[in-house]
Amino acid sequence: MASAALRPLCLCWALLGPAAAAATANIVLLLMDDMGWGDLGAFGEPSKETPNLDQMAAEGMLFLDFYTASPLCSPSRAALLTGRLPVRNGFYTTNGHARNAYTPQDIVGGIPDSELLLPELLKKAGYTNKIIGKWHLGHQPQFHPLRHGFDEWFGSPNCHFGPYDNRERPNIPLYRDWEMLGRYYEDFKIDLKTGESNLTQLYLQEALDFISKQQASQQPFFLYWAIDATHAPVYASKQFLGTSQRGLYGDAVREIDDSVGKILRHLQQLGISENTFVFFTSDNGAALISAPKQGGSNGPFLCGKQTTFEGGMREPAIAWWPGHIPAGQVSHQLGSVMDLFSTSLSLAGLQPPSDRQIDGIDLLPVILQGQLIDRPIFYYRGNELMAVRSGLYKAHYWTWSNSWEEHGKGIDFCPGQSVAGVTTHTQEEHTYLPLLFHLGRDPGEKYPLSFASEEYQQAMEHISGLVQQHKDTLVPGQPQLNVCDQAVMVFDVFGREEKD
Amino acid sequence: MASAALRPLCLCWALLGPAAAAATANIVLLLMDDMGWGDLGAFGEPSKETPNLDQMAAEGMLFLDFYTASPLCSPSRAALLTGRLPVRNGFYTTNGHARNAYTPQDIVGGIPDSELLLPELLKKAGYTNKIIGKWHLGHQPQFHPLRHGFDEWFGSPNCHFGPYDNRERPNIPLYRDWEMLGRYYEDFKIDLKTGESNLTQLYLQEALDFISKQQASQQPFFLYWAIDATHAPVYASKQFLGTSQRGLYGDAVREIDDSVGKILRHLQQLGISENTFVFFTSDNGAALISAPKQGGSNGPFLCGKQTTFEGGMREPAIAWWPGHIPAGQVSHQLGSVMDLFSTSLSLAGLQPPSDRQIDGIDLLPVILQGQLIDRPIFYYRGNELMAVRSGLYKAHYWTWSNSWEEHGKGIDFCPGQSVAGVTTHTQEEHTYLPLLFHLGRDPGEKYPLSFASEEYQQAMEHISGLVQQHKDTLVPGQPQLNVCDQAVMVFDVFGREEKD
Ligand SMILES: [Ca+2]
Ligand SMILES: [Ca+2]
Repeated sequence: MASAALRPLCLCWALLGPAAAAATANIVLLLMDDMGWGDLGAFGEPSKETPNLDQMAAEGMLFLDFYTASPLCSPSRAALLTGRLPVRNGFYTTNGHARNAYTPQDIVGGIPDSELLLPELLKKAGYTNKIIGKWHLGHQPQFHPLRHGFDEWFGSPNCHFGPYDNRERPNIPLYRDWEMLGRYYEDFKIDLKTGESNLTQLYLQEALDFISKQQASQQPFFLYWAIDATHAPVYASKQFLGTSQRGLYGDAVREIDDSVGKILRHLQQLGISENTFVFFTSDNGAALISAPKQGGSNGPFLCGKQTTFEGGMREPAIAWWPGHIPAGQVSHQLGSVMDLFSTSLSLAGLQPPSDRQIDGIDLLPVILQGQLIDRPIFYYRGNELMAVRSGLYKAHYWTWSNSWEEHGKGIDFCPGQSVAGVTTHTQEEHTYLPLLFHLGRDPGEKYPLSFASEEYQQAMEHISGLVQQHKDTLVPGQPQLNVCDQAVMVFDVFGREEKD
Repeated sequence: MASAALRPLCLCWALLGPAAAAATANIVLLLMDDMGWGDLGAFGEPSKETPNLDQMAAEGMLFLDFYTASPLCSPSRAALLTGRLPVRNGFYTTNGHARNAYTPQDIVGGIPDSELLLPELLKKAGYTNKIIGKWHLGHQPQFHPLRHGFDEWFGSPNCHFGPYDNRERPNIPLYRDWEMLGRYYEDFKIDLKTGESNLTQLYLQEALDFISKQQASQQPFFLYWAIDATHAPVYASKQFLGTSQRGLYGDAVREIDDSVGKILRHLQQLGISENTFVFFTSDNGAALISAPKQGGSNGPFLCGKQTTFEGGMREPAIAWWPGHIPAGQVSHQLGSVMDLFSTSLSLAGLQPPSDRQIDGIDLLPVILQGQLIDRPIFYYRGNELMAVRSGLYKAHYWTWSNSWEEHGKGIDFCPGQSVAGVTTHTQEEHTYLPLLFHLGRDPGEKYPLSFASEEYQQAMEHISGLVQQHKDTLVPGQPQLNVCDQAVMVFDVFGREEKD
């Protein structure tokens, strides 16, 4: 039905030729889970085992200064799909100061109806929208992706943690659209001992099939490929196990690299690569708490997932669009996952919503004309503004790795790294005299600038203005990720009757 | 005279055509000073400011697992030119255990006459040999490069430290062949405040002129371009100052990158690129003691210069030889600066000396046929074998960063990095139970393998055998780098009368 209704739109698009075609280019977002800046050969991973991704970068544009909006899955994904900071869309908690939060089973919240998601908006331009993989924007029925603009879904509402006892705590389910297909560890196997699982192959096939279907029906599409093989527990298919010199984590990366190559070749073979904008990135930095067997690399950067140091928030990023992006481009644009919202709307010929604050910017002038747009990057942890980057300067208003209590239990967000006064295990406030780093000279955030220096004074004067402006206009959303009681774990209520 | 005598050789070479031409290919070794593995865009430096070197890598072969033979200048260079470990050629000290040593003014030693240097051997195949830049193999007259096989020299015997008082301690001189041209800070300016110096431009012009002269005379040549702009005090020419987002160190790298591009283009424009083998690498890891303003990056690796962790010894490395090396190759061959000795001899159609132990191997099968040769890497600090790598395993027999005494004075070889039991400030012996790392899964040397694991047992059994064999056959040379008294600072005796 939807397909028939959209046909006239597609016809117009087909008749208008290549120039206008760009106005409704297909959009493929390849979003990795916990993959770090340093995990790709093109970004200096010393085993250099990602030939397809490196080739994608060589044929497209490499972003060296691209960021997530939160160092944790749920808020990062909510920001990507709304173009808004988690503090605005409610993807934070007030359970603790500067506490990261996501949507495990005992969280009742999710993406509010008042938020406008990218697929909802793309529908207006005739797009068919599919999410493959992890949703993570709420597991109650009202948060289902098909209620928020997606037309199709193959994947799970939450992380593939488990196995659970399936009595007090159910295993995480997988869905096709509204139907629950089964559960991780029961119907969809992940062997925690060997790391074997064929999930990435399932997600790949879903992507190839969807692209084929859309090409055949000549409908523009948005594919959100949010796979999770690099999130602990890390997994790979049998044919990739043991193929990496990096161990199981590397096997997962190799399978993803192979899959990305297959998706790009499929677009080329179907003749739609020049009308399909593809963007590859990750939702947060590598989870060093899980390294080395279950976690990746943040290259030369400090700390990892959960922190607002560069290792937690700077992401690998590649834009690919043959015939539009010249090969071998490199950009220093400060980018954000939230820009994928605004850029996608621009690709669809749509305007972003004007009734609310959108934090993402349209990157097409950067990607197509090599422009550099001046804009800050805000580093949040929960609803606390921890740091701000403008140009090459980054000011920390709060520093924290993790608590001494957690640290004592062997949980370390910065293993092997320790910068006095920076990787603090107590929450340290620096709002009156922020720690300032020059990320060009000091990408590893090891050498704070002297407070007395002229350089410090000038940079902080500029950044203080940005922060003041940001805070003055900020209207926080209702916090969605506060912890509730165990009774809310009926997270798989939709579709459950059909399977259990 | 030499030129006339060599002409018949050149004629033979010219008549034999391309296949035989490879037997006396020109050799250009571009040796950087204190440049780290992570300093090139192709190796993941996040500012990605080395377009010429990245292009060189894209046109040639990138080595990801290439090592120096010592984490300090003098022994590294002695090893490169002799193909032998410093413990064999005497480039170590017995003044202290595991103490690195080089050739400052108060060192009386240097390269022994008994050592056969690469240029001495290349002479037999008709090569004209030139060293541009830092020699560092001794400053007494008997150690002069023109007494050890080089035909020409433009550069200095030692590091460009200073300025000194020039009474008790003279400033370091620069030479053209036997003639002292002047001294750093007096005749060859380095502005310590601004970092300005035109030395890299002088070294570039010398290289271009030498290449032109050799091309015109149709004589095969060996050019050893051992520049030092990235060694503290770091410097760059006026037109490069302030051009890098990495600060002064980055300015120096940019000037070097630009110079390498000019040298490669010069070879192409003269039509001799297909008969010139070019190799780019560095003498030791980035000097993190001088970071961020005066030191580079070792990417994701642990510590830096002076240490036998990966950051101290793994080097950026690129082989370039159009028409022979296919574009875009990547090699995981465990390589060493000592291999440049054996590979260069092979390029000249010569055999390595058979009367002594040579540690370097001929990399031509790796470079031209993509072979992988199984060989260990020995990590020495002074005359102590600190660690051994075989395959992806690295065993530490001793760990040490630097002493508590030095550390207390603010000298830190591993700033911001601290791995318990690994980056020790006391010399820790592990010879009975070495610390073992898997460098594929753990390139940052943060997670020692469990001593009880089967993996540990198997890997150590193999490595122990290699170490036993190595130690059983080792004949240490006479130590050349012991500290003497101030009276030996007559290091610029040759040529001095002509200038002072
Ligand atoms: Ca994640
Ligand atoms: Ca050096």
